[in-house]
Amino acid sequence: MAIRKLQVGMAGLGRVGKLHAINFLQRTPRAQLVAAFTPDPAELAWGKLNLEPHGVTLYSNYDEILKHPGIEAVAIGTATSVHAEEAIKAIEQDLHVLCEKPLSTDVEVCKAVVQAARKKPHLKVMCGFSRRFDDSFRDAHDKMEQGLIGRPSIIRSQTCDKFDPSGFYVEYAAWSGGVFIDMSVHDIDLTLWFFGDDVLPKSISAHGITAVQPELKKHKDYDNAVGIVEFQNGKIAYYYCSRMMAHGQEDTTEIIGTEGKLTVNGNPQRNLVNHYHSGGITREVPPNFMGRYGPAFVQEANEFTAACLDNTPLPMKLTNAVKAVEIGSYLQEALVTGKQIHFDEIGRRIEKAQL
Amino acid sequence: MAIRKLQVGMAGLGRVGKLHAINFLQRTPRAQLVAAFTPDPAELAWGKLNLEPHGVTLYSNYDEILKHPGIEAVAIGTATSVHAEEAIKAIEQDLHVLCEKPLSTDVEVCKAVVQAARKKPHLKVMCGFSRRFDDSFRDAHDKMEQGLIGRPSIIRSQTCDKFDPSGFYVEYAAWSGGVFIDMSVHDIDLTLWFFGDDVLPKSISAHGITAVQPELKKHKDYDNAVGIVEFQNGKIAYYYCSRMMAHGQEDTTEIIGTEGKLTVNGNPQRNLVNHYHSGGITREVPPNFMGRYGPAFVQEANEFTAACLDNTPLPMKLTNAVKAVEIGSYLQEALVTGKQIHFDEIGRRIEKAQL
Amino acid sequence: MAIRKLQVGMAGLGRVGKLHAINFLQRTPRAQLVAAFTPDPAELAWGKLNLEPHGVTLYSNYDEILKHPGIEAVAIGTATSVHAEEAIKAIEQDLHVLCEKPLSTDVEVCKAVVQAARKKPHLKVMCGFSRRFDDSFRDAHDKMEQGLIGRPSIIRSQTCDKFDPSGFYVEYAAWSGGVFIDMSVHDIDLTLWFFGDDVLPKSISAHGITAVQPELKKHKDYDNAVGIVEFQNGKIAYYYCSRMMAHGQEDTTEIIGTEGKLTVNGNPQRNLVNHYHSGGITREVPPNFMGRYGPAFVQEANEFTAACLDNTPLPMKLTNAVKAVEIGSYLQEALVTGKQIHFDEIGRRIEKAQL
Amino acid sequence: MAIRKLQVGMAGLGRVGKLHAINFLQRTPRAQLVAAFTPDPAELAWGKLNLEPHGVTLYSNYDEILKHPGIEAVAIGTATSVHAEEAIKAIEQDLHVLCEKPLSTDVEVCKAVVQAARKKPHLKVMCGFSRRFDDSFRDAHDKMEQGLIGRPSIIRSQTCDKFDPSGFYVEYAAWSGGVFIDMSVHDIDLTLWFFGDDVLPKSISAHGITAVQPELKKHKDYDNAVGIVEFQNGKIAYYYCSRMMAHGQEDTTEIIGTEGKLTVNGNPQRNLVNHYHSGGITREVPPNFMGRYGPAFVQEANEFTAACLDNTPLPMKLTNAVKAVEIGSYLQEALVTGKQIHFDEIGRRIEKAQL
Repeated sequence: MAIRKLQVGMAGLGRVGKLHAINFLQRTPRAQLVAAFTPDPAELAWGKLNLEPHGVTLYSNYDEILKHPGIEAVAIGTATSVHAEEAIKAIEQDLHVLCEKPLSTDVEVCKAVVQAARKKPHLKVMCGFSRRFDDSFRDAHDKMEQGLIGRPSIIRSQTCDKFDPSGFYVEYAAWSGGVFIDMSVHDIDLTLWFFGDDVLPKSISAHGITAVQPELKKHKDYDNAVGIVEFQNGKIAYYYCSRMMAHGQEDTTEIIGTEGKLTVNGNPQRNLVNHYHSGGITREVPPNFMGRYGPAFVQEANEFTAACLDNTPLPMKLTNAVKAVEIGSYLQEALVTGKQIHFDEIGRRIEKAQL
Repeated sequence: MAIRKLQVGMAGLGRVGKLHAINFLQRTPRAQLVAAFTPDPAELAWGKLNLEPHGVTLYSNYDEILKHPGIEAVAIGTATSVHAEEAIKAIEQDLHVLCEKPLSTDVEVCKAVVQAARKKPHLKVMCGFSRRFDDSFRDAHDKMEQGLIGRPSIIRSQTCDKFDPSGFYVEYAAWSGGVFIDMSVHDIDLTLWFFGDDVLPKSISAHGITAVQPELKKHKDYDNAVGIVEFQNGKIAYYYCSRMMAHGQEDTTEIIGTEGKLTVNGNPQRNLVNHYHSGGITREVPPNFMGRYGPAFVQEANEFTAACLDNTPLPMKLTNAVKAVEIGSYLQEALVTGKQIHFDEIGRRIEKAQL
Repeated sequence: MAIRKLQVGMAGLGRVGKLHAINFLQRTPRAQLVAAFTPDPAELAWGKLNLEPHGVTLYSNYDEILKHPGIEAVAIGTATSVHAEEAIKAIEQDLHVLCEKPLSTDVEVCKAVVQAARKKPHLKVMCGFSRRFDDSFRDAHDKMEQGLIGRPSIIRSQTCDKFDPSGFYVEYAAWSGGVFIDMSVHDIDLTLWFFGDDVLPKSISAHGITAVQPELKKHKDYDNAVGIVEFQNGKIAYYYCSRMMAHGQEDTTEIIGTEGKLTVNGNPQRNLVNHYHSGGITREVPPNFMGRYGPAFVQEANEFTAACLDNTPLPMKLTNAVKAVEIGSYLQEALVTGKQIHFDEIGRRIEKAQL
Repeated sequence: MAIRKLQVGMAGLGRVGKLHAINFLQRTPRAQLVAAFTPDPAELAWGKLNLEPHGVTLYSNYDEILKHPGIEAVAIGTATSVHAEEAIKAIEQDLHVLCEKPLSTDVEVCKAVVQAARKKPHLKVMCGFSRRFDDSFRDAHDKMEQGLIGRPSIIRSQTCDKFDPSGFYVEYAAWSGGVFIDMSVHDIDLTLWFFGDDVLPKSISAHGITAVQPELKKHKDYDNAVGIVEFQNGKIAYYYCSRMMAHGQEDTTEIIGTEGKLTVNGNPQRNLVNHYHSGGITREVPPNFMGRYGPAFVQEANEFTAACLDNTPLPMKLTNAVKAVEIGSYLQEALVTGKQIHFDEIGRRIEKAQL
């Protein structure tokens, strides 16, 4: 009996793409990375050095990787703007798809991916929200399901990145969809996971500032923003996103129930070391998402692979990925217009959109 | 050279009144508690047992305690509804006043106290926000002033009480002014302290639920609420108040600056004990405000006394107490009406009030 | 009914003496500090400034303070070398005694105090081990008594001071009795409290170094030492004492039982503030014993006073103070001689003492 | 250019053997697990299910696995009693060796392995002390090397396992070498790493109890033991090992220097979740070494593989593995005999051994 391995192609070899490629290559025992695509020469060079020697074929044309002999699945880690198009093409080629979040910054485009996937129910199409694969979030979710906190009622969740002085995020803001879609979409996805994906918004408020990167204003974006989503069923989620942290990445989530509370990463730390010195006691913090979620990405690759090979359900619904972007868009609209948004009892927008 | 002691009268011997009385009696070396007033027979009985043997004269009529021979100052810890009236009477009798927060739940009434105090500039009139006297908050404020976090830009602050199943808070809600005035007023006061008391609101949002005490709705109040105050100068404060905590009191504050962050009580704890057991490692949490702020109340009594005796400035402005209630009222209005509130560049309300 | 206050005299106005004096003067409602003695001119000057205005009579002769009109109790905070003599004199004058630890560095001298106290059973004679009055230690002891950790079997306890570069401790070592008597005596006292005062030693080992103050060697002392006391009943306590800490004072205690563990001060901290900065997250540590045990000293003064006034039992036995010094002396001997010490089943020394 | 992979055979498929096998199979990209040996039928069955489908050949005879075509390295995870013999056989067959700790519980047998390895300097022979591959210990070591704590002077290190009520450890004690060799050998290895492998012992003390497994006495072993090793160069290490923890595994190490301190795992935790409930705030603890050191074992397999393939130095010396067992044996002797052990200035034992 020989082991069958899922034949995977990687689209995009940027920061997250490289991570996925290495994970499928070396940390996903049931998968075999057979091909990689990137239009970027520098990324291609990296692929030649790090992937080709392991037998991975490189492509600079997306359509071609889809025709790689024996390919069964594509992981998409390219720029957000092409996620949906690439996902749909792969689906049409009868390939399983693991797509980086978000499917698109545009809700209608997200829905098109869902439509394409619906036509091919035998395919596994997943939008990867890495926190769903993190040990700590899973443990918290298990504890909630066991009833340890009663009825979950309030979620506080933040995505806070270390300040990047390079100016990268100013340009990035031109097409990122804004902080609530780019960053808080993770917190919104967690909300759907902990509150249930049937929650309907009742009203949404958001406020933001540009404390360290005033240039963001030209793209109508912010470097710090706070938003509140009140749901129809007497639940509230509130979010903070920031790109200004001095100390590193700090994503903290609290799930507050009628009989208890669960926190994830309330005390950020890079490892188990504390340094005692004349100024006190210091511990370090992960500098970025890889320091915090590295193992979760590995877990994601493995679970996606298993679902494809064994034809078992994916751990999350594709429609949630649309809903998360939708709520993110509302928050972003509330942020930019300075107006609260309201919804009726079945979740239909009451005021006309302003953006 | 004999030590002169400030002759203090205590008005109110309820939960907080008892605490103030004992503090002035036993933990304020430069003060002498000479008299106490309460209209409540049970409280009077407590006074007979605990104060009278120490030479404290008891009164059941407020006007009379103001005429107690030699009295120089009154500490007011009665019901909020009579704070302002009693404070003004004491001022008119030429007595220093330490009044429990809030001066009133009505901004105009608060202003009347300020007016009365302005006519007697030689008197010390202070509204006691206990957190201003807490070691940890002071240390955080010092560190901010030293520039350790750059420019403070975002404040997250919560006042969360242990759930009280007695139903007390439902009745209390009838006249408490609502959760943002009753609870978050402390967080708002901290905001004025850390951001500066010249901050002007730009827009305010608030959302709330009644997760465990649906009866609160009849008083238009909530047991969990989240609010955001955006200020004109590019700063944001966001607040969470709750009366639903299973574990005890948890007041947490974060001051987030352009170059760092300070947290106060990010890891609540009752003392320095940890219990390691088969379920993990557990530490306890203070059950109420006295477990958290006991020493701050003592410090408050001592600093108020010193200011009166030495004619030195009080550690906080009376006008801030008005401003905190004002912002709390806006938050409460936004909460109850479900409408965002906006202000022009000099802080004037744009829309007409809805309440 | 007027309140009767215990008339207390303070002997010694050095570092700890000042603390006791202020505690009896201002933080012990049922006591009145009426007199203070010190042979030291600088301390006397401090007393004139800080105690005399409160009606405290100052003495530079110990015999005279004992005759102060109406004096009922003496708190002794002078140099260790005169503790016992002063305590005995006070007892002979029929005064209650609160004596700083240790009674003496010499076990026989300690026993003489116990003998003197035995002749006057109506007097309250206590050797103050401040940790017995600390909230956290009391909570840990309560939890142990409730059976939360099964049968306590191992104690790890350390007394670690911030490094003092002044050279003070080198001279101090000439008469301190050595680190195990001067510092670990607190940990030994805790051992007697948690294991029971009937424990008998079975064998004792100790090792030490002079890492930062080699001059200590001339007084046969060490700046870091580790010792183990194995008891007859299958229990072990192990101690670490150090005067080398860079970060502040760090006294940590673990009580390890057959079904759980309790720690006290496993995470030292000065207050509830955490500073997040580009190097990580930092909290400060108390610089000295006052930052850690200040409230315990107040509690001690109050409980001693109550026991004297109400003729109730003291919270700790005087004989324990002897036993703690005795075990400390054995550890010190083991440390200096480099030899393990053994005891028979009723706790009698097997080898002849080497010191 | 194709990737060359180290051809690895696994000896032993018990608890640790399985872990190594899976690591070489799936988490060591440059290695290929080609063969596995175990004399145990149950382990063999596990191998058939989990290894054979991946192309791993199974052997029930150790000599045969050494002749597996193309095999280059053997990882030894069998019972301690056969470690040395198997290692020597593999070396003689010109194979690289990664051997689980300890090489043997007998110092002379350990030395025989070193002798065998010395004859084949082209081979990589390593005794795996997993903590050397742990991120946190490495970070602490780096910080020490950067001078952050001055001169390291005191090490406190403990290896504490969750209580196993099955009685397994009573039988295991018959041949484990005793707690100091079986458990503290890790702490001793860390001591050699942090203090330098040239440290020479000066004196050694140890004490132990059997608090929960009195049957251990028949094998002259203990379930809790404390030992001190004083070194010639003015350094001290002290160890605690226990098999009695209620809460899980708790290995804590402190490196105390003249100018600061580093702790590793001072606050044990299973993940980043905290549960707030009516009894306080609880976090869980890893139940066993895999929960704490899982990633370190993966790192170990990868670094061993790289050293073999690239002929680069191993991250640790084989002789240290002997020295660690030697010091562990002295501690064990001091524990069992109740006698302190002394060494002269060049580290030679002064008294005659008692065991």
